[in-house]
Parts: sequence; C-alpha cells; structure tokens
Amino acid sequence: MITAALEPGGSRPLYEQLYLHIRLEISQGRLAAGERLPSKRALASHLKISVVTVEGAYQQLLAEGYIRSEPKRGFFVQPLEPVTPPPQADPAPSPPPLLSAPPLRYDFTTNAVDTAIFPFSTWAKLSREVLSRRDTALLDALPPQGAPELREAIVHHLYRFRGMRVEPEQIVVGAGSEYLTTLLTQLLGRSGGWAVEDPGYPKTARILASNGVEVCPVPLDGQGLQVDALAGSGARVVHVTPSHHFPMGTVMPMGRRAALLSWAEQRPDRYIIEDDYDSEFRFSGRPIPALQGLDRRERVVYLNTFAKSLAPSLRISYLVLPPHLAEEYGRRLLFYASTVPSFEQYTLARFMEGGHFERHIARARTRYRARKAHLMAAAGEAGLLGHGRILGADAGLHFLLQLDDPRPEAELAQLAAQAGVGVYPLSRYYRELPPAGQPPTLVMGYARLPAGDIAPACRQLAAAWGFAPLS
Amino acid sequence: MITAALEPGGSRPLYEQLYLHIRLEISQGRLAAGERLPSKRALASHLKISVVTVEGAYQQLLAEGYIRSEPKRGFFVQPLEPVTPPPQADPAPSPPPLLSAPPLRYDFTTNAVDTAIFPFSTWAKLSREVLSRRDTALLDALPPQGAPELREAIVHHLYRFRGMRVEPEQIVVGAGSEYLTTLLTQLLGRSGGWAVEDPGYPKTARILASNGVEVCPVPLDGQGLQVDALAGSGARVVHVTPSHHFPMGTVMPMGRRAALLSWAEQRPDRYIIEDDYDSEFRFSGRPIPALQGLDRRERVVYLNTFAKSLAPSLRISYLVLPPHLAEEYGRRLLFYASTVPSFEQYTLARFMEGGHFERHIARARTRYRARKAHLMAAAGEAGLLGHGRILGADAGLHFLLQLDDPRPEAELAQLAAQAGVGVYPLSRYYRELPPAGQPPTLVMGYARLPAGDIAPACRQLAAAWGFAPLS
Repeated sequence: MITAALEPGGSRPLYEQLYLHIRLEISQGRLAAGERLPSKRALASHLKISVVTVEGAYQQLLAEGYIRSEPKRGFFVQPLEPVTPPPQADPAPSPPPLLSAPPLRYDFTTNAVDTAIFPFSTWAKLSREVLSRRDTALLDALPPQGAPELREAIVHHLYRFRGMRVEPEQIVVGAGSEYLTTLLTQLLGRSGGWAVEDPGYPKTARILASNGVEVCPVPLDGQGLQVDALAGSGARVVHVTPSHHFPMGTVMPMGRRAALLSWAEQRPDRYIIEDDYDSEFRFSGRPIPALQGLDRRERVVYLNTFAKSLAPSLRISYLVLPPHLAEEYGRRLLFYASTVPSFEQYTLARFMEGGHFERHIARARTRYRARKAHLMAAAGEAGLLGHGRILGADAGLHFLLQLDDPRPEAELAQLAAQAGVGVYPLSRYYRELPPAGQPPTLVMGYARLPAGDIAPACRQLAAAWGFAPLS
Repeated sequence: MITAALEPGGSRPLYEQLYLHIRLEISQGRLAAGERLPSKRALASHLKISVVTVEGAYQQLLAEGYIRSEPKRGFFVQPLEPVTPPPQADPAPSPPPLLSAPPLRYDFTTNAVDTAIFPFSTWAKLSREVLSRRDTALLDALPPQGAPELREAIVHHLYRFRGMRVEPEQIVVGAGSEYLTTLLTQLLGRSGGWAVEDPGYPKTARILASNGVEVCPVPLDGQGLQVDALAGSGARVVHVTPSHHFPMGTVMPMGRRAALLSWAEQRPDRYIIEDDYDSEFRFSGRPIPALQGLDRRERVVYLNTFAKSLAPSLRISYLVLPPHLAEEYGRRLLFYASTVPSFEQYTLARFMEGGHFERHIARARTRYRARKAHLMAAAGEAGLLGHGRILGADAGLHFLLQLDDPRPEAELAQLAAQAGVGVYPLSRYYRELPPAGQPPTLVMGYARLPAGDIAPACRQLAAAWGFAPLS
C-alpha cells in the first residue's frame, strides 16, 4: 500500500502532497506501469485521511496522464515514455537583444511622425466616451472587415479627400499595412512575380519574400515606375506609391498612370496595389486623383494607413478592394477575425465622424509645410544647398538631398552619424544597384525633428561634410 | 489662347475653374500633346486674372501629369494614354453582404465568452489611467515583439499559472492567434507538411492552407493526437491543443506528451505548436504542466490568447518561442511592427501587474463551473442524458453531447436549429470522415448562455429531438 508521509497543516494541501508522492513513485518506477492503485476508500483509511483528499490526488494524476481509470476496475499506472535529456554540447543561444534607438542627436528618419501635433486631448475625450457609452459592447467581436461605423467614416473621408466613390463593403480594416500586405498575398495569390518599385520601401519586398512571393524589382524614371520594364519583368502584381513615391518623392503623372492601368487590364489576373501611405500631405495644389478613381476594370487595390496621418502606434490601415475581390474576400478569407481592437475602431470612427481627422490633417499639413520651409532655409544658410539640391519635396514627410560631391553616399552618411546626425543613403532603398553616375543622395525625413533642432542639425551636417556656412 | 469662362465668386476658386477648363481641353484633344501653353503672365493678362491664379492651375495640371514644364521653355501638353472604357458585358458583381448572426433563440456556440464576467469598470479605470499618465507616449511605436511591461507581466503569469520559466525576449505579442499562426508559417517555413488534429479547430487548417502550407490531418484517440499517425504523415510541424483538445475535450496524458516530444526531437526541423487557448479554465485538480515546460530541446512553440480569458475583441495573443527561434525571429522577422496598439498593451500590462487578471480568471472559473453544473442538471431534467452522455467536460468552455440515436448529426442539429437552438455537429470539425459507427455527437459551448436560458434551452432541445422530460 502507498505510504506517504503527509503533513497536515503543511504549506501544500494534503491532496497535493499525496499527488506529488504518487507521481514520484511512478516516475521513479516504484509503481510500475499496469499496477493497480488502491481504491480511494482503502487508501484513505490506510493513510487516515478523507476520501475526498485521495480523490483530489487521483484526479490530478488522471488529468496529467500518470494513471488511467477503468470502469468498475479501478485506477492503473500508465506507461510513461521517458523525456530525453537535453544534449549537453549544444547550449541554447542567448535570446536576441531588444531593439534600441541609435545614439543620434538629430535624426532625419523617415520612420516617424510628429506625435506632438496629434490632438491627444480630443482623442482621449472620445476614448473615454467610447469606454462609457459602449460599455461591454466593446468586448464583443467585430465583423471581420472592421466596425461598420469606421468603414462608413473611411468611405466619407475617401470621397471628400480623394474623390473616391466606394462602398463600406469594399473596405477591410487591419492591424497595419504590413498585415494587410500579407493578407493580400493570400487574396491575390502568391503565384507569378510581384513587382516592387526599385528604389522603394524596403519592407514591402521583405514582407512579400517572407510570404513566399517572388519579388521583381522594377526601375523608375522621372515619372515613377517604368511600365515597359514592368511588362518585361513578367510580374503579375505590382506594388506602387504613385501619389508620392517612397523615397524618390516622384508624383506619377497622368500619362504614366494610364499606362500602368493599361498594363493591368491586359490580363485578368493582373493587379495594382496602390499604396497611398502619405497622400494626406501634399503641399501644393489640389490632391491628385488616386489610381483607384481612374480604374474602370477593377484592377486596383487601394491601401492606406493612419500611421502617417495619425500615429504609428494605432496600428490601423485599410484596403479598398474592387468589388469582385471584395466578393472573393468574403468567400475565401472572411474566416479571419478583425485584427484591430474594437476600442480603437470605435474611437477612430468617432474621431472621423466629428470632423477631427480632417481638422487634424489640415493642421498637420500647415505645420509640416512650415517645418519644410524652415528646413530648406536652414539648409541654405548652413551651406548645404551650395553643394547640392533638394528633390521630391512637393509632398510627403521626407525629401532627398542630392549632393555634388565625389564622396560616396555611405561615407557621407557615416560622417553625419559620427557628428550625431542621422541621414540615410538613397542606395539603401535599392534592391538592384543604383544607376551608374547617380550623385550621392540622402533621404531626409523631417516629421519628427523639433523646430529648434532644424538649424543646428543643418549646421552640424554641413560641418561634418566640410561645407562652409553662408556668411 | 485658352479662353475659359471663369466665374469669380463661384462655388469653386478661380484657379480650380481654370484647371478644370484646361484639363477638359486636353482630355478632349482640343489641346494636343506637345502643344505649348501660354506663359502664366500672358494667360493671366488675357483672362484678366492674377498670375498666382494661373500658377495654381498650372501647378495642379503639372502635379497630375497633364502638362510638363521645361526649364526656360515653358509648359507643354503631355501625351495622355486613353483609359480603356469598362467592358459592357461584364458588370461587377455586387459586394458580399456583411456577416449577420443566425436567428437562434439559444446558441451553444463555442465562439464566445461571457463578457458580462469581464471586470469592465476596472478595465475602464486602468484605460483612463493609461490615457492620462502615458499621454503622447501612447503614440510612439512599440518594440516589434510588444511592450516590455506586457511581456514581463506575461512571463510572471506563465510562471505562476503554468510553472513555465521563460524570458521576455522569448515572447512575441500579436493581434490574435490567427495573425501569429501566419507569422509562424514565416518563421518555421512553409515547406514540409504541417499536421493538424482531426477533428480540430477548423480555422487552423484554413489559415495554414491560405498561407500555402500543406495541411496533414492526423487522427486522435482517447489520449489525443496519435503520434504514430503523426510520424506516418510525413509532417514536419504539428499544431496541437494538449491541455484541452478542441472540440473533443481530451486532456493529453503525460505518456502521450512525452511521445510527442520524442517525435519532435528526432529531427532538428520538427516543431510542435502548443495552442493553450483555454488552459485557464480547468475545473478539477491543479493545472497540467504545459508541453512547453517539458520541452528540453527547444521543440515547442507555445501559443496562447486573451480572447478566451478576457474578450475576443481585445485581439491580443502571444507566442513563447524557444531561445533559438527567438534569436531567428530577431534576425529575420523583427522588421514587422507590433500589430497591437500600445494603448491595449499598456492597459493589459497594468491589469496583469495589479493582479486583476488572476482574480478575473478565478472568478470566471467559478462562474463557468457553476454554469456547467447547472447545464448538466438541466440536461438531465430535460431528458437529454437519458439518450446520451456528456464528454470532455473537465476543462474549457465547451463539451460534447453524444447521443444514442439513429438519426445523423446533421439532422439532429437541423431539428435543433428549427426549434431555435444552435448546436454544432462534431463532424463539422473533421477534415477526413469521422470514424465509422461514431454515435451522433454535438459540440456545445456554454460560455455565453445566460443562466436563465439554460433550462429552457435544454427543454427545447429535448422537445426538438422528441425526448420525454424526466417527470
């Protein structure tokens, strides 16, 4: 009979002490596989404990598979396959360090927005309203394509800002453009090549490759993606940023847009993904119509994000699918639950319905325009423009500084970094080699640089590169 | 000379009227490709408007690519490729209808939790604190694997509740288990087969297939996934729910767990994905150790969600990667931004740190246990248990009702639905055919059913199936 030394009043309950004792007996082989355990009543009487204590221990052993129960026969020890010991010679590598920010005093990164512009108190107020008015409805799952009120608000915004006429049924809200790009590989199919702009946003190619898609880099000219090269690449799908190319800043003219659409119309499985990531920030003239609005044959999937127009941490982007793809999405992918919490969806819907989003964009555009003017003036005063020029500055939150300088981009960026200024070589954004003879060019984002830092950052850059300031 | 009929004081600004006029002239061919536009000054004088108005119109035309500017020569009409008209014979299909709930009076769905249990006022209070204390820090992007405080809180929880000793660097927080499963196909590779339990959670197989992974269904026996059949399937990765199989309710015993780990240890590219989706809700004995805790050779990827333990709408799940995979994640996939908004991450971290999560689970477990007992009693009184039995009810938020009845499952479910009660045939969860001779079995989730509905729902079911109530 099992004889456990149980301690009533010990730190563990009696049933657990008994469970641990029997488990040890089994794992050390003193209770062999197939052996029958005493009945609960017999063991309780033997150990002078209650039947319910023995029952607790047996239940735990049963649940963990150390014993099995056979109806009307009792409890039997289960065979236990030994767990192989870990190999001694192959210690686990240490886990990766968390990402840390580079130690730069001034950073012209393109991967940021000025969150100081964000109307935080309005957002917080609407958040509180959502919390109290929606109450536990916040806990219910949302429709897979996103909250209906948010999709309605996006539809109205697209009509007012981009002249696009779309239906809420065409919208898919998702946790960021990266997630939605992954989803698109599933909707449009991974077969055939997917073309990306070269240079372009490097993450797009990485996401596609990580999803098993063959990536075809296609070169640009002064009007954006070269449609002839696209046709020659054999690609079936193309990802483009026609409103404001990243990072060149090119705005694709109408002729090129029409040519791109013609390319897509030539085969029923060709699609264009129009990534409109910063179209909200055009600084001259009216907004340019989206490719989506010119598309008459359902070839364009429109992708936009609130990361640039509001804040990256919100993780809300959306797709506008052409009707036949929205139908296909509903048929094949609607099993995916919405990836954005209901709380953010309802708050953003209210923010848009109340006109706060449009006011925020107008205010942000004014702020960014002033900052860009300030930066250009400071670049001139620091002597930077005596050695080069600024390109692609009509829109968006970054531009290019192209220098007439014999030193390679990497060296210029390295000198800047040593002086505590982050600027980024354009060649980083190429998958193939940059065109021969292209002057050294640096990508400069200015969304996050505080106003007071602009002039010192430019002076620091000019000093790092040995340019004399204007006197 | 261009002669536009401009309306000063009209609803559109003058520059826009002029822009629209010229655009029309170009698109209708009255201004031909290559033609030079009048200088801004000349046109302004001709139309008796200011130069800045003409400039606005030209800028817009330039930006949209209708004209180009040549330095010192002026503005020229660009060739415009015609946009092909839409085909007449092939009207776009109408977009899919939004999902709607089935019109059931009582629904034993497994796809819900009782959000009434959720401590909403505590959550709302913590949310407000996060809003006011974090302020604009909420807008900054988080580390890609998730907020450090949330990962710390998860580590502590796993230690206290599951006896798992893991480091925050092994955790990847993501927007739901579906998203993380997609991510795993990228981390572990799509090659080789991925085994799923059959029967099992149907979405897992759909997600894998949608990501281009070959899905190998592997049958179960009374101890869970059959490891011999797994070995025979040729699969390289297996997705399992050992704590509480979905939908059978099986708890995988220790011997089977050890055999499964042995299978994985036989080749360095084999992995086990342990989906611990509802391990918080065990109703008897102590929690069973996770496979992850038994794994000595870094073969187990642990996946859990807050969808069952808190609310589906939060969209927060997490992975625990073995150290070498955490290192590989850092090397290959760290470019993916975190998919969960910082607001939810900070609020959940506080909720866990403050002990609210553990209290909530304890409370929820008590509530669910009582509801299950209530349901079983009601099922007995309604006469359901005179015609069958309940299986897999030791844990989790659903169980099986297996009937001794000649009618097929589908017919029984159909009769129930006609009587306004949702119960779900077990055969739905099989990819292959269910074993021959398996009695009709229905999957019944009870998390969402209000207490007052339990008895009437059971009576309704018994009546629908023609069973007499106990008198």
